[in-house]
Amino acid sequence: MTEPVTFAPARAEDVPAIVALLADDQLGAAREDATDPTPYLTAFEAIDADPGELLMVGRRDGRVVATFQLSFIPGLSRGGAIRAQIEAVRVHADERGNGVGADLMAWAEAEARRRGCALLQLTSDATREDAHRFYERLGYVPSHVGFKKRLT
Amino acid sequence: MTEPVTFAPARAEDVPAIVALLADDQLGAAREDATDPTPYLTAFEAIDADPGELLMVGRRDGRVVATFQLSFIPGLSRGGAIRAQIEAVRVHADERGNGVGADLMAWAEAEARRRGCALLQLTSDATREDAHRFYERLGYVPSHVGFKKRLT
Repeated sequence: MTEPVTFAPARAEDVPAIVALLADDQLGAAREDATDPTPYLTAFEAIDADPGELLMVGRRDGRVVATFQLSFIPGLSRGGAIRAQIEAVRVHADERGNGVGADLMAWAEAEARRRGCALLQLTSDATREDAHRFYERLGYVPSHVGFKKRLT
Repeated sequence: MTEPVTFAPARAEDVPAIVALLADDQLGAAREDATDPTPYLTAFEAIDADPGELLMVGRRDGRVVATFQLSFIPGLSRGGAIRAQIEAVRVHADERGNGVGADLMAWAEAEARRRGCALLQLTSDATREDAHRFYERLGYVPSHVGFKKRLT
């Protein structure tokens, strides 16, 4: 670990590494099919073209070791506040316990503040108890229930 | 109740009525200041200019009786799925029990399907137990914990 992890917006050539991180996960394994890159590249183009979306990678020694997506959502609630939302946070199995997750969340929070967001929010699967302890340590309050309905 | 509730994108002149709905709420009352419309109108312009955001009103006999916001979030997860997210769902106190909430959620779901979304998601404050029963009846699964961190 000579170099620190650096965070930068994802490029199209990072997509396979990001999909590999999404698939290397207890819940993600059943949801991703990394054999066909086409739908992921199409999605990447939509994210990249949207000024309200920021797909990020963390690199160490040139290798993608982490990823997350930030969405900036304008709204009327809370005095017309912009809220930042973090989705799809993943750290490579080799890099867990190295502080990469905390660095990633600090980067996200700084960027949300820079864009004037009043709130940073995320949802985490109820089974990810270690992740919940991690978010609570960083000052996140588990005040809400996250509901999802699959449409396909 | 001669006319049904009709749903349409909010216009700038609807903003005061929407803010009144947001403020007329156990949790919202402390978070909104309807005496100064300026920040809400600024936020409205940002929402209105963003093709990934849809702020809606429900009207009956010309009066705004409901509101909600749909966000369409492209992502790499779940095979490059677009997810729809519902925020700031409110129904006027006079109209509760009239099926407006169910009509509103049906409209949101139809729009999410029309835009090819694979998932519809929302978070609801843990204290809103009636709302949770409502969402579960509509097929939403409370699979996640919603974390929030205030930045201001």
